[in-house]
Formats: sequence, C-alpha cells, structure tokens
Amino acid sequence: ADVQSGVDRRHIAIDRVGIKDIRHPVRVSDRSGGEQHTVATFNMYVYLPHNFKGTHMSRFVAILNSHEREISVNSFKEMLTDMAQRLESKAGHIEMRFPFFVNKKAPVSGVESLLDYDVTFIGEIHNQHPTMAMKVVVPVTSLCPCSKEISAYGAHNQRSHVTVQVRTSDFVWIEEIIDLVEAQASCELFGLLKRPDEKYVTEHAYDNPKFVEDTVRDVAQCLNDDPRILSYIVESENFESIHNHSAYALIERDKTQTPHSST
Amino acid sequence: ADVQSGVDRRHIAIDRVGIKDIRHPVRVSDRSGGEQHTVATFNMYVYLPHNFKGTHMSRFVAILNSHEREISVNSFKEMLTDMAQRLESKAGHIEMRFPFFVNKKAPVSGVESLLDYDVTFIGEIHNQHPTMAMKVVVPVTSLCPCSKEISAYGAHNQRSHVTVQVRTSDFVWIEEIIDLVEAQASCELFGLLKRPDEKYVTEHAYDNPKFVEDTVRDVAQCLNDDPRILSYIVESENFESIHNHSAYALIERDKTQTPHSST
Amino acid sequence: ADVQSGVDRRHIAIDRVGIKDIRHPVRVSDRSGGEQHTVATFNMYVYLPHNFKGTHMSRFVAILNSHEREISVNSFKEMLTDMAQRLESKAGHIEMRFPFFVNKKAPVSGVESLLDYDVTFIGEIHNQHPTMAMKVVVPVTSLCPCSKEISAYGAHNQRSHVTVQVRTSDFVWIEEIIDLVEAQASCELFGLLKRPDEKYVTEHAYDNPKFVEDTVRDVAQCLNDDPRILSYIVESENFESIHNHSAYALIERDKTQTPHSST
Amino acid sequence: ADVQSGVDRRHIAIDRVGIKDIRHPVRVSDRSGGEQHTVATFNMYVYLPHNFKGTHMSRFVAILNSHEREISVNSFKEMLTDMAQRLESKAGHIEMRFPFFVNKKAPVSGVESLLDYDVTFIGEIHNQHPTMAMKVVVPVTSLCPCSKEISAYGAHNQRSHVTVQVRTSDFVWIEEIIDLVEAQASCELFGLLKRPDEKYVTEHAYDNPKFVEDTVRDVAQCLNDDPRILSYIVESENFESIHNHSAYALIERDKTQTPHSST
Repeated sequence: ADVQSGVDRRHIAIDRVGIKDIRHPVRVSDRSGGEQHTVATFNMYVYLPHNFKGTHMSRFVAILNSHEREISVNSFKEMLTDMAQRLESKAGHIEMRFPFFVNKKAPVSGVESLLDYDVTFIGEIHNQHPTMAMKVVVPVTSLCPCSKEISAYGAHNQRSHVTVQVRTSDFVWIEEIIDLVEAQASCELFGLLKRPDEKYVTEHAYDNPKFVEDTVRDVAQCLNDDPRILSYIVESENFESIHNHSAYALIERDKTQTPHSST
Repeated sequence: ADVQSGVDRRHIAIDRVGIKDIRHPVRVSDRSGGEQHTVATFNMYVYLPHNFKGTHMSRFVAILNSHEREISVNSFKEMLTDMAQRLESKAGHIEMRFPFFVNKKAPVSGVESLLDYDVTFIGEIHNQHPTMAMKVVVPVTSLCPCSKEISAYGAHNQRSHVTVQVRTSDFVWIEEIIDLVEAQASCELFGLLKRPDEKYVTEHAYDNPKFVEDTVRDVAQCLNDDPRILSYIVESENFESIHNHSAYALIERDKTQTPHSST
Repeated sequence: ADVQSGVDRRHIAIDRVGIKDIRHPVRVSDRSGGEQHTVATFNMYVYLPHNFKGTHMSRFVAILNSHEREISVNSFKEMLTDMAQRLESKAGHIEMRFPFFVNKKAPVSGVESLLDYDVTFIGEIHNQHPTMAMKVVVPVTSLCPCSKEISAYGAHNQRSHVTVQVRTSDFVWIEEIIDLVEAQASCELFGLLKRPDEKYVTEHAYDNPKFVEDTVRDVAQCLNDDPRILSYIVESENFESIHNHSAYALIERDKTQTPHSST
Repeated sequence: ADVQSGVDRRHIAIDRVGIKDIRHPVRVSDRSGGEQHTVATFNMYVYLPHNFKGTHMSRFVAILNSHEREISVNSFKEMLTDMAQRLESKAGHIEMRFPFFVNKKAPVSGVESLLDYDVTFIGEIHNQHPTMAMKVVVPVTSLCPCSKEISAYGAHNQRSHVTVQVRTSDFVWIEEIIDLVEAQASCELFGLLKRPDEKYVTEHAYDNPKFVEDTVRDVAQCLNDDPRILSYIVESENFESIHNHSAYALIERDKTQTPHSST
C-alpha cells in the first residue's frame, strides 16, 4: 500500500524531486564572532532512479525539523548527507536563502546601522561527496561614466544588484564577498547616513563611475586573484534611473576547467 | 441542490465576494487616436446580503467572456452594470490593471521609443450608480536636493514610482495624468536615448532636484488646479540609490468633501 | 543650509512621509513562553504639516537602529512615541511585517514540525495616543461544498490564504488568531504529515467543505463573539485548483462604530 | 569621447551584456489561424570580447523599436541576427516572455472562455547560426494518489505549474505543448465551468491521480516520442493544499547528446 515505493516501468529517471519554498528559522555565524538569527527559504531535492515510482516527500520535511529549532551551517552540511542517506539517493541538492545583516559604520560620522543582503547557500552531494557554493546579492550604487563625461554637471546613478556565486576550496566569510564587491562599486550602500556622510557617498560615486561592464569585470578580477575561489558567476543589474528597464552583465568562469581565455 | 442559493442564517453580510487575479486581453484608446492592445488582470466583486449563502462565481467569468475577445473601456462600464444585475447585488467593484504604452520622443534627438506605465481602472457601482477611478504608476527620475547642495559635485538620483489615483467629473486621458506627473519630476524617463539626450536628461535632473515631499506636493498642486479632478491620492516611492530602502510620501484629498485645509 | 527644515509655501500638508521596505532583525514572544528570532520589513511614516519643507529621513533609520540589535514588541511601541517626538509630528504610523513560526503536532501521529505565518504589527499614534493593530495571514485548505455535492466522488480543494486584521482592547496572542482561523477552515496545514495524518487531513477537509463566503463568515462570527476584538477585516483568497484565478471574499466591521447590522 | 568604444585592458570577456526587463507590445499567431495581441518582457544580451570596454546599450532599445509597433515572431528572429550585427558580436541571446490566451470549451457544457499561459521564446545566435527554444508554463490540477488510496473518501488536490522548455527541429505550436501537458495532468484548468463541468473536472481529477513524479515522467515520455523535440526540461511545481510549501520535480534531456539512459 506504500504507493511511492512501487516499481516504475516508464524507464525515466528524475533529475530532481523534493520540496520547494519551505521556510525555517536559521542561525548564521558572523565574521565579528557573533551568531545571527534569521529566516531561510529552503529547496531540497534528490535524484530518483528510473525504477522507483516516487520519493518520500515527508522525509525532506522531517530532516528539516530534526535538528535544533534553528538550522546552522553545520546542520546544513549534515542535512545534505542525511538527505542522501534517508532518501537512498546518489545525488542531492539543498538551497537555503536568507537575509543577512552587516553592522556598517557610515564613512565620515561613523554612525552605525544594519544593512541587509540576500545570501543563498547551495549544497550538492554526489556519491557521498558534498560540495558547497554561496551566492550573495550585494546592493550598491552605480554611476554612469558616459553620463558623467558628456554632461556639464551631474551624472545619472542608481541602485544596482551585484550577485556573486562562488565555489571555494576553503572557508570564505559572507562578509569577504560583500567587502570585495563593495570595494568595486561606484559606492557602497548604508542604512543610516548623516549629512557629511551623504556628501561623501555622493562625491565618492561621482569619482568612481562604472558601467555595468566595469563592475562585473572588476569583481571578476578580484575573484581571479583569490586562490580560494574555484569558480564563479558575477552578475550586475543596474535599475537605470533614466530608463524603465535594467542594464545587465554576467561573467562566468570555472578556474578548475579552463585556462584564462582572453578571447 | 443549488448550494450557493440557499438561505444563510449567520446574519453576516459580505462586503466583497468574487474573483481575483484573472487575466484577459483588453484594448484601450490612445489620445493619439489609435487603440492599443494589451493584457489586463481583473478583480471583480459584489456585495452579498446576509441572507444569501453564496454568490455565483461562474457568472463573473461569464461576464468577462461575454464581450468581444478584447474588453474595451466601454465594455468595462457595461460590465459593472451587467455584474450588479446578474449577481443581483446593490453594489459591485471591478478593477482592471494593465501595462499601457506611450510613444515618446527623446528630448534632443527626437528618436522615438515606447515607454510602459501600469494603469488600473477602478469601477464601483452602488444602487445602479456607477463611478470610475483611474490609477497610473509613472516611473520617473528623482534627484536629491540635499545631496546636490552639500556635495562639491554630483547628486544621488534614482528611479521613483509616482502613483496617482483620481476620481474625475469629466473624461481625462491616461496620457494627461502621465504628462502632469512627468512635468513635476526631476526628469521623465525614456526607453531610447542618444548621447545628446543622455546629456540633456542628466543636466535636467540636476537642475530640478526634488525631495519625495516635493514631488507629491507639486503633483497635488496640479491636481488641485484641475477642476475635473474630484479626489486624488498621490504617492511617490524613491528607490534610493544610496540606501537599500525607499523614501516614500503620500497625499490624499477629496475636494468634494473637505475645504482645502492648510494645517 | 538644512534644506529639509526650510519653510514651505505650497500650503499642502503630507499625510504620510518616511521610509519603506527596510529590513531589520526582530524578536517576538511566543504563547509557549519562548521568544523567537525573525526578520521584519518596516514602513515608518509621519504626518508633515504644510509649513515644513521636508522630514528628516535619517532619523527614521536612526530610531530603528537605536534599540538592541533585535527589535522587540516593547521597542516597537516605544518606537512609535519616539518617532512622533523626534520627527516633531502629531501623527505617525509604523508597520512591521515578519514570518512567524508555530510548532505544530500532526493530528494523528503527533510528529512535530514548524509552520510559517506572515504577521504584520501596525502601530498608529495620534496626538500622543498610540493604537496597535495586528494582521495575520493563515494558510489553510479549503474544500468546495458545491464540487462535493454534485460529484459522485472527490471534491476540488486548494490552498487558501485567510487574512485577519484586528484592533483589540486587550492583549491577544498571534497564536490565538491563528487557532481561531484554523478551527474555521476546511482543514489546517502542517509542515510534516505521516500517512495516518494525511488520511486524517484528507477526510477532515472532505467532512468540512466551505465556500470562500463560509470561511469569512465563520471567522467573522468568532471575532464578533470575542469581546477583546474592537474591529476587524477578514479576507479569504482561495487559489482555485480548477481555475487559474482566485475566489475571494472580505468582511470588514468596526464594533465600536456600528451596531451589528443584519442587512 | 565615445567612452564605451575604448580599449579595455582587463583581458576579461563578458558572457552576457545588454538590457533586462523591458516591456513591449507583441503579436503571436494562433493555431486557430488568428493573431493575438499581447505584451512581452524582453531580455537582450550579447557576448562582449575582452578588448572592448563596453557595449552600446541604446542599440538594443533601438532594435526593439525599429520594427512595427507590435513585434511578431518573424521580427523576433530578425532581431537576433540584427542584434548580433549591430552590436558586432559573435553571440547573442533574446528572451521574450508574454501571457498567451487559448479559447477553451468546458468539457460538458461546451461554454467557452479564455485561459492564460505564460510563454517565453528564447533565441540564441552563435556565429550567425540562430536557434530557438520555447518555454510554456501550463497551470493544471494535480490530485495525490497516496491521499486517494489511504483515505476513505476525498483526496487532496491543488493547482500545479507544469513548465516545459523545448528546442525543436521543426515548427511546433504553443498550443501543441499545452495540449500535451494538459493530457498528462490529473485535470486541465478552465476559466468558466458550469455545474456539470465542475462535476466532470472533480471526478476526472479523482480518476487520474498523479504524483509530481508521475506528471514530469508522463510529459517526458510524450516529448521522447515526438521526433521534432530535440531537447527538453520538464518541471512540475505542486502548490500543495495540505502544506505551506510546494512539491517539485524536474527532468532534463538532450536527445541529440545522450542515448536514453535508463539508470
């Protein structure tokens, strides 16, 4: 009577089957030494061989609820192995997306405030071999070099999302990716700015104009230079202030596979 | 056996009952004399007296499909009356939200391109008396006066959404509301800009800095001055380029109810 | 040089001005005696009299960051008063929207798992008098009575969102609103269900068919009967499994204003 | 002074650069012989070699506005070639996502109504060689076989999105993909259903229970059997009526690359 455990005769394996968009509390370690509490949305999938009729959906939810109330990065890794075992699958995939906060100091006044970033941990397991990737969406200011050059005064600028996804050979803090991206943007964002800070960020952005192409290339260059980064995808989406559409660029590179092509 | 037509004994009337988020093709007249084809999302509700167990959900969909394939503004008005009659209700409400396109000329080169706006028609009927309101979301550039004043050069700017909802005594084109808002913004948006146009919009925004407070007040002033406007809500949301949050302001006024208060 | 503090000559007051969509960590008390950590999205607005040119946007963010890292319900209330004072306004409004988790036991097996709900606290202050409202979105199963009655077997059912917004005279737990709604639905939802639980929820929903009209009325009746509830809005949106649109109903009532009308 | 045309010395090519989320009116041919007007959201990207500083963003928008007001499938194909030429790139990518309507007859009464589907055309061009793919999101009913088997009566069911992306050797109508998917679902959806139709769809879904695994496999089998389909991705997301999360499955296959593996 266990419908899912029957034999399937369609001879078609399923690449991914599981649960999607389930929320759960998590806690994540800070570079500052603390731990922050946040809420994640999980996707959990396994590979299903052609001869099994179905997977056991409830086991995914059971795994999610079998750790402490708040899932930590350590339990995330255990969940990958646990899932592959309990679902008897050779391959599995877990995504955990959550807002992450960094306490930032305004550039001149030093007043502190939190800024939020969207972070996703992506775990894969193949034949008991787990790998981890991390994706961080860093909101920044971008200021257009062309607009600056051709205009007698001013330059259009806007909020942009720079998204970096990395696979690494070693531990990398979320904050390291954030720092790396913010250093390459026209200017970084802050929650709280006093007047001298606002003067600073305005002038700083004007002094550092970047096309969407510049942003992704400058971030890519930093990722090329960091030996811990094995592969990456860098995207920038500029929510143009003079148009009702975005400017967009993407660079993808797997350092383990390809020599650095300059074509 | 008609479950919905039974008598209800809970003695509770329902303010709105009907269907939500159903898409249908529509056509809308241009001020330019043409008609444009677009796609709308409809919400259709009626009042249900306490003694009726349920409404007839399929009749709402039937009304939507009983006109020509593309619903026009004229059929929209007929639908209001039709709905109140066929659902035997003293009150009804229909919303129709659609993207609307305006062919704009770039300010210097004159090159043409379309820009998209989100428009909602809102029809209400009470005791056979229909009224119509219109809501238009106008994306614009806003440039911060404070940032301009305190900085040696540059000024942060960003895309903003100015939303105007109006009830009118007379016919008003969608394009009239768009023009009114765009004239009050730091600068209007365009799909296509050549280099001299980009210079123009950059400098024009710099020459017309506006706080979110200025934008809603200047738009409100124009709406105060137009005798066809009976009531309005003006909102502006600035997607700040230096923060990861929005600045927001709202003014609401019903000219038919209240004297112009200056408190 | 303080641009925002200048005098404004347009003679137009602004109903709401402030910041929108800013995220911040919060903690919320459980009925179970614990405290849960979650992440909220805040909107914070004040009234601006006609003679002031602008508000001080940075003060809103400063207020948000001036409490402990995690904002509690107590700090939320203080923030309302604080905001009205520091922004020198007679009226203010704060919304705080967050995912909230309840540990539920499956109906037969008793296995435990978390379920997530969207909750919004809405604080208003007028002339130093603060009031609070709470909005809870409760996802449930709804099963169609008509489909059950006319079909030889089966009945279409679907996920629905029942949204309840209340103003109360006394303290009410979030969980009390959740319990109240879940008791009126065809069936409540669970994260984790074993086979006997799945049998139970399937049959329980079939035994408790409800139109969208029934759900809002039955919830309204419970809210009518609770003397702590001063006013409410109840909505239900059924994401119909046989259509590509929703069925929707809404009841609004202010017990302090109107006698219970049975028209 | 043409900033974008300068030489770039970072030696990093950009995989995709262009514009994102721009809306434009389109028209699409029906299998019924007509043409329907709708509105699309476009993404347009090209490859940028390492030695070019930037692309010309305005040319993308110019291409979009250089055809008749409504872009047709024929102009879509021309746009691909045109874009690669005008942006002087060896590779390009255009996506065009739009709501598409099919006039359906209810299964018993035969009453007609429109149903909406989300469709995306994806064009790629590499060294002047264009290829096209099509993605269709088909909303359907899914009914759980396990719930049916273990329950004395009833079975939970819900709306699901079945998404099929195909590359084909020959012309395939959007409606062919829709028909193929709807034939494999527990039941297809309709805008308008009368009582005998509602009885029919309720019983039909109950007679055709499908796990998310069954749906993707049965659709995959049909795509395997159609010689015009070169490669495909099939996904199903069931918005579970008994949970607050989705069940999900995906099968991907490139017939031109791999033998049909039955592992």
